[in-house]
Amino acid sequence: MGVHSPHTHGVVILGGGFGGLYVSKSLNRGDIEVTVVDKRNYHLFQPLLYQVATGGLSPGDISSPLRVVLKGHSNTRVWQARAVGVDARRRLAVLEDGVLPYDTLVVATGSGHTYFGNDHWAPHAPGLKTIEDALDIRRRILLAFETAERETNQERRRAWLTFAIIGAGPTGVELCGALAELSRYTMKHDFRSIDPAEAQIILIEGADRVLPSYPSELSAKAQRALTNLGVKVSKETLVTNIERDTLVVTRNGKEQRIRARTILWAAGVKASSLGQALANETGVQLDRAGKVVVAPDLTVPGHPEIFVIGDLASFTHQSESPLPAVAPVAIQQGRHVADSIKRRIDGRPVKPFRYRDKGNLAVIGRSAAVAHFGRRRFNGFPAWLAWVFVHISYLIEFDNKLIVMIQWAFDYFTRKRGARLITGDDPHPLIPNSGREDPRYEKE
Amino acid sequence: MGVHSPHTHGVVILGGGFGGLYVSKSLNRGDIEVTVVDKRNYHLFQPLLYQVATGGLSPGDISSPLRVVLKGHSNTRVWQARAVGVDARRRLAVLEDGVLPYDTLVVATGSGHTYFGNDHWAPHAPGLKTIEDALDIRRRILLAFETAERETNQERRRAWLTFAIIGAGPTGVELCGALAELSRYTMKHDFRSIDPAEAQIILIEGADRVLPSYPSELSAKAQRALTNLGVKVSKETLVTNIERDTLVVTRNGKEQRIRARTILWAAGVKASSLGQALANETGVQLDRAGKVVVAPDLTVPGHPEIFVIGDLASFTHQSESPLPAVAPVAIQQGRHVADSIKRRIDGRPVKPFRYRDKGNLAVIGRSAAVAHFGRRRFNGFPAWLAWVFVHISYLIEFDNKLIVMIQWAFDYFTRKRGARLITGDDPHPLIPNSGREDPRYEKE
Repeated sequence: MGVHSPHTHGVVILGGGFGGLYVSKSLNRGDIEVTVVDKRNYHLFQPLLYQVATGGLSPGDISSPLRVVLKGHSNTRVWQARAVGVDARRRLAVLEDGVLPYDTLVVATGSGHTYFGNDHWAPHAPGLKTIEDALDIRRRILLAFETAERETNQERRRAWLTFAIIGAGPTGVELCGALAELSRYTMKHDFRSIDPAEAQIILIEGADRVLPSYPSELSAKAQRALTNLGVKVSKETLVTNIERDTLVVTRNGKEQRIRARTILWAAGVKASSLGQALANETGVQLDRAGKVVVAPDLTVPGHPEIFVIGDLASFTHQSESPLPAVAPVAIQQGRHVADSIKRRIDGRPVKPFRYRDKGNLAVIGRSAAVAHFGRRRFNGFPAWLAWVFVHISYLIEFDNKLIVMIQWAFDYFTRKRGARLITGDDPHPLIPNSGREDPRYEKE
Repeated sequence: MGVHSPHTHGVVILGGGFGGLYVSKSLNRGDIEVTVVDKRNYHLFQPLLYQVATGGLSPGDISSPLRVVLKGHSNTRVWQARAVGVDARRRLAVLEDGVLPYDTLVVATGSGHTYFGNDHWAPHAPGLKTIEDALDIRRRILLAFETAERETNQERRRAWLTFAIIGAGPTGVELCGALAELSRYTMKHDFRSIDPAEAQIILIEGADRVLPSYPSELSAKAQRALTNLGVKVSKETLVTNIERDTLVVTRNGKEQRIRARTILWAAGVKASSLGQALANETGVQLDRAGKVVVAPDLTVPGHPEIFVIGDLASFTHQSESPLPAVAPVAIQQGRHVADSIKRRIDGRPVKPFRYRDKGNLAVIGRSAAVAHFGRRRFNGFPAWLAWVFVHISYLIEFDNKLIVMIQWAFDYFTRKRGARLITGDDPHPLIPNSGREDPRYEKE
């Protein structure tokens, strides 16, 4: 098939996230030629992205260059390029700037966020999917405190110290927890005109509980932990509009306007555009979020040579609802696909995929977390310890990021956040007139 | 005397670099009210910026939020704002968005780089002064290797693997050393189509030796270390033009065109525009680089209440040439100014400034460095150890960056560079057609 020597089988993997990376990690065999395509040169450990957004970790701490992770695999090359489609008939992955032939294709390009048709909200309420997103959010959060410090008008100062987070899934909950820690503890003695602990943190959720995908008793515990940290949780609340400094919501049919200069978007996930491209090419069914409805063996029906895994796949053969879009699903699917590819080459039968749910974890500030592993549910410090352990062991597996673990332990004892930098093209404060209101100048 | 209560003396410090920071660190006294103004929210440890540019360290490792450094000083506030001028008559520091009254003003806004009237070179040959600069350079360096990996045309590939660094002062020399380490060792097994060790690194210097401000025997040793790492050193060479992928130089009257896709600017320092603003306001003399020629006590002649220190000051009272623009000078000047301010308030006499030269250090890759401390000159591993020790102890003084030291030790043993991320708005490769030349596709 294709252009390979008779004895090599060409696998092209689109996406170097958890799914794609675990396929390639498990395909270290001389008779398989692997190409990993990603528009970035690094694998991103997305579960800790909110730590970058709140100044706890640096981008380098949670990212590993794909070449470094795969350097020991002489059968594998890394191609930094943007995948835009698939030519299933000719078996070509279509890149923005060329094509790549394949015998087997693995599509693992994940998902982005969606504003449900309100893309004009994006500049006022950034989402958290990339390193650039995280640095933008970090800049907004830190600049809000800097500007509040110089703002003398009470109402405007209050708006700078109000933070609204939309969406109470794991990302929203973890962002709230980290923001609360930052303002209540880390920054305690940093300012002279404001008390950062006065910052209002509001969590907006459409459902009737936080962490809707978790067991309800853990939702209750998570909400209690958030409330203890001073976060205001507003459930059954729908966002109807977002302006530069105002969030408009409705609850029980009543409209409310919230003045907040920092609004963050942790709601609404949309599948990568590769899903639509695959549907156009192969006729495969997409679900409402644009995810590819895969066969029990994770292939596109009618195309045994095309696998779709991770956040881009909708796998509905195990329970009523599709598997959740979390790292453990992508990792297990990646390993399964690698196994299937090797089985096929060796002439052995391929097995259907089955997800083994090892549990869920979410962390809410220092030593507060909720977890369930099978029937065992726990919270507080034991859950936090489990969370640290699970995340650190992933990071170390990829790239020996021992340093992160040390920083972690250090942060834990000191509540310090070492990466609180405002970087970017325009690092000075956002409101132009606050300096003129310096009380010392007025008195003169 | 401004707006302060009768017993407090108001000091405004413009700039939170080494100079400004050391003034404020030494002014922790209840009868002095200090305001530190910086357009950034952090102090940057500039001597290690080239490590960020070459993926060895993260921005957070070499930056400390000014609020964190000064949090224990209840008499000190930090103001994130851009200073644009001085109203010496009314004793006001003029900010972009307001004014600040002072009793004593310390101007320490440093320097930037200049292209000697060729500002159109800037997009093709970025300089290294800020975190943003360093991340831009890191992106260019890493993308050059990524693009070379996909480029099949020999000549174009060679241009992607050619790196020209202009200026052989400490920054240029250290950049070359780090780039050589990166391509010769760190990336050794990362690529499949190219051998990163084939990268050509060319150092261009107008003078007749590298490190022209160091003793000549150390220049010779530094050049030998660079040559051993495979760097091509081109002395007495003048840059006449820079285009997107070509550097034009003349040497001995002969013109030469060098095809290089990565060109870095480590030459030409220009004083901050506050120098010109001060000259307009007070008539103080500027030197050729725009630096303020200060009195022996570091004040502006005729204005004992205005101090100028660090890279912005030209101090000519100690030797024939002005003091060099290095951190130790700024630090000692900062401490001296703080002492002078306290002496004046206490009614004690003020002393002239005198620089105590404790030596110079430059590092060229792993365990190669040159140093002179007074009459003692050494190089190789002892110089490298001294360099590590001096830099780490500064970093720890500010912000307890123990983590950096650990990363350092780790890097030293593994030649690893943990922060090799291509971030920014446009993270995909720069040439659009290389993928089409994939040999596997051509053969099909």
